[in-house]
Amino acid sequence: MTTPRKLPCQSLLRLRPGLSPATRCVRLEGPLPLRHGATLETVHIAYETWGEAGSGTTVVILPGLSPSAHAAASPEDPAPGWWEFVIGPDRPLDTRRHHVVCLNHLGSCFGSTGPASLDPATGAPYGPDFPALAIEDLAEAAWRALAQLGHERYHLVGTSMGGMVALALAAMHPESVRGLTLISSAPRATATAIAIRSLQREAVTGDPDWAGGRYYPGPGPVQGMRLARKLGLISYRSGAEWDLRFGRERYCGDQLHPFAAGFQVESYLEANARKFVERFDANSYLQLSRAMDRFDIDDHGGLVPLARRLPRAPHLVVGVETDFLFPVTQQAEIAEGLRAGGQAVRFARLPSLQGHDAFLVDKARFAPLLAEHFHRL
Amino acid sequence: MTTPRKLPCQSLLRLRPGLSPATRCVRLEGPLPLRHGATLETVHIAYETWGEAGSGTTVVILPGLSPSAHAAASPEDPAPGWWEFVIGPDRPLDTRRHHVVCLNHLGSCFGSTGPASLDPATGAPYGPDFPALAIEDLAEAAWRALAQLGHERYHLVGTSMGGMVALALAAMHPESVRGLTLISSAPRATATAIAIRSLQREAVTGDPDWAGGRYYPGPGPVQGMRLARKLGLISYRSGAEWDLRFGRERYCGDQLHPFAAGFQVESYLEANARKFVERFDANSYLQLSRAMDRFDIDDHGGLVPLARRLPRAPHLVVGVETDFLFPVTQQAEIAEGLRAGGQAVRFARLPSLQGHDAFLVDKARFAPLLAEHFHRL
Repeated sequence: MTTPRKLPCQSLLRLRPGLSPATRCVRLEGPLPLRHGATLETVHIAYETWGEAGSGTTVVILPGLSPSAHAAASPEDPAPGWWEFVIGPDRPLDTRRHHVVCLNHLGSCFGSTGPASLDPATGAPYGPDFPALAIEDLAEAAWRALAQLGHERYHLVGTSMGGMVALALAAMHPESVRGLTLISSAPRATATAIAIRSLQREAVTGDPDWAGGRYYPGPGPVQGMRLARKLGLISYRSGAEWDLRFGRERYCGDQLHPFAAGFQVESYLEANARKFVERFDANSYLQLSRAMDRFDIDDHGGLVPLARRLPRAPHLVVGVETDFLFPVTQQAEIAEGLRAGGQAVRFARLPSLQGHDAFLVDKARFAPLLAEHFHRL
Repeated sequence: MTTPRKLPCQSLLRLRPGLSPATRCVRLEGPLPLRHGATLETVHIAYETWGEAGSGTTVVILPGLSPSAHAAASPEDPAPGWWEFVIGPDRPLDTRRHHVVCLNHLGSCFGSTGPASLDPATGAPYGPDFPALAIEDLAEAAWRALAQLGHERYHLVGTSMGGMVALALAAMHPESVRGLTLISSAPRATATAIAIRSLQREAVTGDPDWAGGRYYPGPGPVQGMRLARKLGLISYRSGAEWDLRFGRERYCGDQLHPFAAGFQVESYLEANARKFVERFDANSYLQLSRAMDRFDIDDHGGLVPLARRLPRAPHLVVGVETDFLFPVTQQAEIAEGLRAGGQAVRFARLPSLQGHDAFLVDKARFAPLLAEHFHRL
């Protein structure tokens, strides 16, 4: 077990205003061979923890593409995390009962090794020379990091892309999994999800400031990333929610771009996209986005054999009816596959209006559901 | 009545490979004052016709943003049009019984006056100096063009944006309308539709080759227009259709862009977008797109008073359940509004998988519905 240490392992911190002081880092022992053939000699995985290690069940959170490991506040960083309403004392994932770990994925830019990290071979950021990642590589890096931290068996909670990583980890290391909570995830990308993400990547790489991926230390393809994020937001939410929230309300500030029509929804997109672009690395975005498109649980034999290899455990699968990107039909497919493999699965189909992002914001529906489930662990 | 003449009225033809030799052009008598204050001194409106003028009902087709006036083949241009399965002898809109006119909208680039036209004051293309257009301006130009062609009363068929133009024309000149067929249209843009179109416009104006709109005679913002079109295609179709059509089929041709994932759906988007960009003017796209966002039938007092001003007539409103951009709830709103104003309205809610584009491709559902309706005119 490597002693966790304060993050000396990354030189990219100055680029990432989103990094929490509570984030720790573990350096994998030995190189990491990747699915597409290359090998990373040095890999750091960033993480945060809540609750006492060794007490109760260890619950490991695998986030989506964009969040960091800072899922909730802690004494070291009182700033709210991206899943603040879920994690903490007396919250659905009660940190007095469970030890909670949230990882930053391999390839991301919040402390873990990724394209913005320094390549030890050159001393410069990897940029476009970072090897192509697969979801399986994220899973393998997570599994090894958890093992080094002393975690042999844990309950996995995967949201969005994190659910794909959880499925891959379960397929590759079923003996480590004590149960799965999969929220708004997918066994593979739909054609529409591929289309949207491919378009986002085209917007980024088509921005001259992407410069073939060699934009460090500059801000990089700000315009392309802004477009990509706005398209993401459109795909994460639902029309019904935006009609309620923005409708045709006008925006009377500065002109956002030539031919902006002057509506509030345009200003919301702009503000959110600007914030995102400040903290997320474009090359990380490209890598993780493509990895999601290529993942397919059928490359591991499918859901049913995977479920048969898992120890019996209570699983939870949650889908949201208004999710355009990871449609509820895919959550149903996961639940049915796990059941067909002999597992006890609760499948919750929620009518939240917030689409793919509902698990981040629909506290009224998610908090009681998660509380009941995590209480059984 | 102005004698229709072969299109000598546009100098932009060389820019528009999509223009049909069957397209005619009418020059409006006198200047056209626009809703936002400016005046266009010279306005040409392009159109095509099928069937004998003066026989049966005149049916005027108002297309969506991107199609030209070439809705169907004719002796002068046997190339199939964008609504080929609808128009012709023995087709739903039977040209042996009806005289059919399809207009190219003001602001478009297929023969009608738009930003790519030469400004008579300067002899150069208007480009960014073309005045801001409203849907009402398109309606007024259409109404005047039709009057000059000798059409005083007609049945209006509006698809997508054309349905907004039809509603505006009906609100401004109810005495000219003998009935409305509104397909996958809207009384106003939803917040999501505004978000999508604003993002498309940002992609275009963010392309350095847009050059503030002064890109003539060059090809202009090809990369931005390609992104905008791909986003359009994603919003026009439905996930269920693409999953059936493309699924996770791989594409093994040239790399489409850096970080393309190698799926068939990416190649489809690329091929379609390239074709579109060759024929559609970017400044036209920006103008019409923004005009759609700003249109609101409530600026004319709403649907109910509009319906009360119309002569009694059989109307048809068609919506598609998988339409993401012009949701079926908006078609229901139109139908209910017209009914509440005393009109007889048939409302058809179709389960087509093809989303907003269904009326262009779902012949099996649209042909019998339209045939039955147009037979009653």
